[in-house]
Amino acid sequence: MIPRIVSVTGVKEWSEGELRPMDDYLVGEEPLEIRVGDTPISVTMRTPGYDLDLATGFLFTEGLITNRNQIASVRYEADERQNGANRVRVDLAPGIVLDPEASRRNFYTASSCGVCGKASIDAVRVRNIEATNAQCSLDPEVLCRMPDQLREVQQIFSRTGGLHAAGLFTLTGDLLVVREDVGRHNAVDKVIGWALASDLVPLRDSVLMVSGRGGFEIIQKALVAGIPILASVSAPSDLAVNLAREFGMTLVGFLRGRRFVIYSGSERFTIS
Amino acid sequence: MIPRIVSVTGVKEWSEGELRPMDDYLVGEEPLEIRVGDTPISVTMRTPGYDLDLATGFLFTEGLITNRNQIASVRYEADERQNGANRVRVDLAPGIVLDPEASRRNFYTASSCGVCGKASIDAVRVRNIEATNAQCSLDPEVLCRMPDQLREVQQIFSRTGGLHAAGLFTLTGDLLVVREDVGRHNAVDKVIGWALASDLVPLRDSVLMVSGRGGFEIIQKALVAGIPILASVSAPSDLAVNLAREFGMTLVGFLRGRRFVIYSGSERFTIS
Repeated sequence: MIPRIVSVTGVKEWSEGELRPMDDYLVGEEPLEIRVGDTPISVTMRTPGYDLDLATGFLFTEGLITNRNQIASVRYEADERQNGANRVRVDLAPGIVLDPEASRRNFYTASSCGVCGKASIDAVRVRNIEATNAQCSLDPEVLCRMPDQLREVQQIFSRTGGLHAAGLFTLTGDLLVVREDVGRHNAVDKVIGWALASDLVPLRDSVLMVSGRGGFEIIQKALVAGIPILASVSAPSDLAVNLAREFGMTLVGFLRGRRFVIYSGSERFTIS
Repeated sequence: MIPRIVSVTGVKEWSEGELRPMDDYLVGEEPLEIRVGDTPISVTMRTPGYDLDLATGFLFTEGLITNRNQIASVRYEADERQNGANRVRVDLAPGIVLDPEASRRNFYTASSCGVCGKASIDAVRVRNIEATNAQCSLDPEVLCRMPDQLREVQQIFSRTGGLHAAGLFTLTGDLLVVREDVGRHNAVDKVIGWALASDLVPLRDSVLMVSGRGGFEIIQKALVAGIPILASVSAPSDLAVNLAREFGMTLVGFLRGRRFVIYSGSERFTIS
């Protein structure tokens, strides 16, 4: 069985009191198992496609590997029942050993206050993330054009509606890559996995634009990849804002038309 | 430190070329650790509030417990560093033993095709979910009013934007409860945890309305609680539609104004 990215199904539309049959496009959602060697690491519900990037991006943004040279190979692998489309196997380079503890979110590490937001931020800090690039700057008008650029290439979204997208831009507004997925985290991991394979990490001169909320875990993934500017069309949480401020990331929300809100790092914007 | 549901922070607004300082409301996001006895089960990033319902709802919808009588007590518990606001401890009734395997999503169980969507649906089936109530019916006009009813009581959303909400309605359109959270799954678990504590489960005569996508895991949680009708303002995935059809659930998407799309179970709608 080959996972489908988009499928068509018969549905019924109710409109103003009338019911009529129609065809509708649905986005694909299938589990993906990520293995390192023979060890299962994670099963995530994702939209099929770019699965190798998703696997390497996930391992990287979750701190299980720290650079692409630690990967010897990444490929689809059939499981016991010969389904080869929903399992990706990553083999590490000789001498690289997986720290099983790193595969858990270590909310307790290096913390002085137990389970809390501060501990979560501390757990990110101990991953030895470099400071984001303080030298880069961005023209607000360039930022304002990004949502439209993203929508232009969102092919799955326009057919099925409701998908999450993540797009990576240069500081001059060139779109490098866009990925769509039923899961917000997956879209970001696919983008970062692509950048990892393209040897572009750390992404010191880039802007990540996400279609959904800028939550804590999205900020964390972007920080691990060295992304200095993150923008979303929606609202961040308080913990996301605190994390961005802690690491000097520029965090933008409510990017709509020619208006946006800067939660952190406003000094990167060039105001003429 | 007491977790906050909403906080205020100074931000900068860029609009039409001008930058000005303003205050903005941010939604709270903090980790919550759920324990059963002394065993940590899960850490989830959630908006503080209704945490006891979140914990019991999570255990129930993930199949770790099957009814409220299996719970002896649920309470906040301080951790080693005396933070008592982000850990909930559930103690089970005498004789009830947790199956550690049940705490993993068993995508492989009872499957003939390995890791795939069908296996995911099979894994839901083996949880002995009862068939959804075939006798209930719903007036489409009642359904169309629910998004507005939900928005009227979404207090956090209106202040901070971008939050997920889940609302539980009767078949005649009375709103029973609404919960908001940074996480879609958490909002649903809080609603179902409330219903569990109110002895309303299985929810055989109810409608669950969610603000985001109706993805596979949301459908699964609703099915475990016996909810026969699920509606969202956005698009479901193909796997979500297949799961709803498999269990006879009525699944509605794109509920906006006086128009919606019925993906499954259209026979529950009364068309005059």
